[in-house]
Amino acid sequence: MSEAPSERTRVRRLPERGVYDPATVASILDEALICHVAYTDADGRPRVIPTIHARISETLYLHGSRASQTQRSMRDGTEVAVAITLIDGIRFARSMFEHSMNYRSVVVYGTPEEVTDADELRTVFRAITDHVAEGRSADARMPTDDELRQTSFVKITLDEASAKVSVGQAIDIDSDHQLDVWAGILPLATVPGEPIVDPLLREGIATPSYVTDWKRPGRA
Amino acid sequence: MSEAPSERTRVRRLPERGVYDPATVASILDEALICHVAYTDADGRPRVIPTIHARISETLYLHGSRASQTQRSMRDGTEVAVAITLIDGIRFARSMFEHSMNYRSVVVYGTPEEVTDADELRTVFRAITDHVAEGRSADARMPTDDELRQTSFVKITLDEASAKVSVGQAIDIDSDHQLDVWAGILPLATVPGEPIVDPLLREGIATPSYVTDWKRPGRA
Repeated sequence: MSEAPSERTRVRRLPERGVYDPATVASILDEALICHVAYTDADGRPRVIPTIHARISETLYLHGSRASQTQRSMRDGTEVAVAITLIDGIRFARSMFEHSMNYRSVVVYGTPEEVTDADELRTVFRAITDHVAEGRSADARMPTDDELRQTSFVKITLDEASAKVSVGQAIDIDSDHQLDVWAGILPLATVPGEPIVDPLLREGIATPSYVTDWKRPGRA
Repeated sequence: MSEAPSERTRVRRLPERGVYDPATVASILDEALICHVAYTDADGRPRVIPTIHARISETLYLHGSRASQTQRSMRDGTEVAVAITLIDGIRFARSMFEHSMNYRSVVVYGTPEEVTDADELRTVFRAITDHVAEGRSADARMPTDDELRQTSFVKITLDEASAKVSVGQAIDIDSDHQLDVWAGILPLATVPGEPIVDPLLREGIATPSYVTDWKRPGRA
């Protein structure tokens, strides 16, 4: 385990699961489709919303509409905590107490900065599009100037990011091993179904391979 | 659409997607394996963590260890915002701008109350166990008094809960329909793999049907 980048980032519970290396953090951010952004509103109350993200190098970009309350708060320099969580399986223990999940998660703290440069906005649009399906940005129409104006991206650095990774079988207490109770892991994955073609699609356009063979980066 | 139970709960963005009926909220809470809990820490900073939950009637229970900082804060009467998000698919539009996700999400606001009654704690243990796999609580060993003492459950009512449901194809602007770009929905689902039996499992214990036929409530 490497050193935590800040006191707040240090994984307090079950510290053997805390991992801070940038490659692990990056792989979790890249595999997850969405993240949850928490902030404190003007009344001092906690808020949390799911949103789409993309990572470019050591920067996390968060997507939103210019009109959304969360993006307004973030543009105003509100500190955020961002959670990214991948569920890899259910860990069935013999005791209820030891039941748990196998997961990989990241929390990022930071104060977002608005993306205002038009070239950077276009780069982020491409990254967000490729984040959901690698290769899509080569096909989809780039945003117009008006669409750029309607969109708000904010960015935070990954300076204060930490990951937790929980793998393996549950560890029951010795006396529980004699129980007639099944124990093991049920792996879980996010899996695509059959594409549902837009009924308004022009004839002669084949479903692209990034849809028919969709998978997350790093997954088989 | 029914009426929002409070001003804060009202869905501001894309209000046509806001749904407040308790049955929709309940079905999303029951299907989701985890939730994300946001709160403001003692320094006034936002925090967010993933955790396991269960719903019993109009109450949401959140699980944690007695030692965790989040559960300590929640036992101290900190207000929370809880997000529960199910991703149903990727919505491929012809323009990058109209790309989106099909999802069902709930946000619950409230001030958690600690569960202290031993009978209620046992009921919640069963509910959390059955939440991850319906029927498991009949097999798994109930918690000992010592395990109950090490566990912290908090509860919040669903009085301030709202759901957002986003379904259907992307709606591109008319001029984009002439583009040579595929459009449609790629459905996504959480799917189980092959169970990995604990190598320490006693011989002669079959894998139960709630593992081999695992699915979420309400899903085929």
